[in-house]
Amino acid sequence: MKKVAVLLSGSGVYDGTELHESVLALLEIARAGASYQCFAPDIAQLHVVNHLTGQVEEAETRNVLVESARIARGEIKAVGELNISEFDALVIPGGFGAAKNLSSFAIAGAEHQVEPSVRAFISQFAVNQKPVGFICIAPIMIPQLYGEGVSGTIGNDAETAAAFEQQGGQHHTVSVDEIVVDEQHKVVSTPAYMLANDIVEAHSGISKLIEKVLQMA
Amino acid sequence: MKKVAVLLSGSGVYDGTELHESVLALLEIARAGASYQCFAPDIAQLHVVNHLTGQVEEAETRNVLVESARIARGEIKAVGELNISEFDALVIPGGFGAAKNLSSFAIAGAEHQVEPSVRAFISQFAVNQKPVGFICIAPIMIPQLYGEGVSGTIGNDAETAAAFEQQGGQHHTVSVDEIVVDEQHKVVSTPAYMLANDIVEAHSGISKLIEKVLQMA
Repeated sequence: MKKVAVLLSGSGVYDGTELHESVLALLEIARAGASYQCFAPDIAQLHVVNHLTGQVEEAETRNVLVESARIARGEIKAVGELNISEFDALVIPGGFGAAKNLSSFAIAGAEHQVEPSVRAFISQFAVNQKPVGFICIAPIMIPQLYGEGVSGTIGNDAETAAAFEQQGGQHHTVSVDEIVVDEQHKVVSTPAYMLANDIVEAHSGISKLIEKVLQMA
Repeated sequence: MKKVAVLLSGSGVYDGTELHESVLALLEIARAGASYQCFAPDIAQLHVVNHLTGQVEEAETRNVLVESARIARGEIKAVGELNISEFDALVIPGGFGAAKNLSSFAIAGAEHQVEPSVRAFISQFAVNQKPVGFICIAPIMIPQLYGEGVSGTIGNDAETAAAFEQQGGQHHTVSVDEIVVDEQHKVVSTPAYMLANDIVEAHSGISKLIEKVLQMA
């Protein structure tokens, strides 16, 4: 049975992992007969956002690992606990958590950095030629992790695509039900809620991404 | 296009809505060509549970409506905003939120009460003969809402089934991929994570429940 690590970034689209994307990724991994183990960095969230009003709750702090545990029903590990030999692949759902907690893209744009413990975690998959699937805004981290010329997509947002290219990546504009595959680097990406108008559209690209990642694993 | 209300109870299995169950319910509603609108009561959560450790965070409070908005990507209404004429059906996912926030089952057992604003909300569907689907532990509210002899399931837990019957319901023991249908009351229930060992098993019963609820709508 193939085993997939899933990297989470909190719990909720505006300050953490997008919940539909993460649950649908878990569903498709399990439906394909693979198993999963969730991980998250043990760091403070950049923001706590009130998802009813959209306002940042300035006085509140939450921990990325603790909140991500909500998606994993408690079964989660800190990124530092990874034993790479146990895993065949990695999937990273989107949501602002990927741009606020896993990287600094939400505040630094094209100058963003991948958070050090996250970088060390993902790099173990890259170095060991294990496939990684990046969903929604998570692909913004691809160029920094894989270097010049790596291919990926964040959908069709011009500014985000420009930042992807400024960091050395080759951006491909695709529709919501498509994936971009970089066979050399074993990197797969799909826009999901960067473009999706509803959960069915998000599901379409995520299903293809999981299928391809497992095929490459 | 049929329109389904989805009643949430927070965001996370131990103090709110079970995330897999809620996202999978939204997926199946949308896949069937129906639309959905999420609702939640505007009340404080009974608990905030650290999902990594399982401990109750005694000093912390969160609001059920605000946290439920995470699942709805911000598109949510308070239960008091319901215009029943706009809706064809209701679905209520599980998680401890159904037993801690929507009702007092987690603390009062067979003597539990459905929270007043939640009772008023669900009752509008019952009174207007609009079908309601209850998932996981949410069916524990069925007898109090529908009265003597109504049929439902919470899976096979003897103590929970006894509480269901003590409140006047007729409990049916079923497996995770089955639903119980009370045609007279237009009530459908399925055990999901009361029994499910994984997300695929939870999905099986939820898919059948959504299909049946939409067929009755």
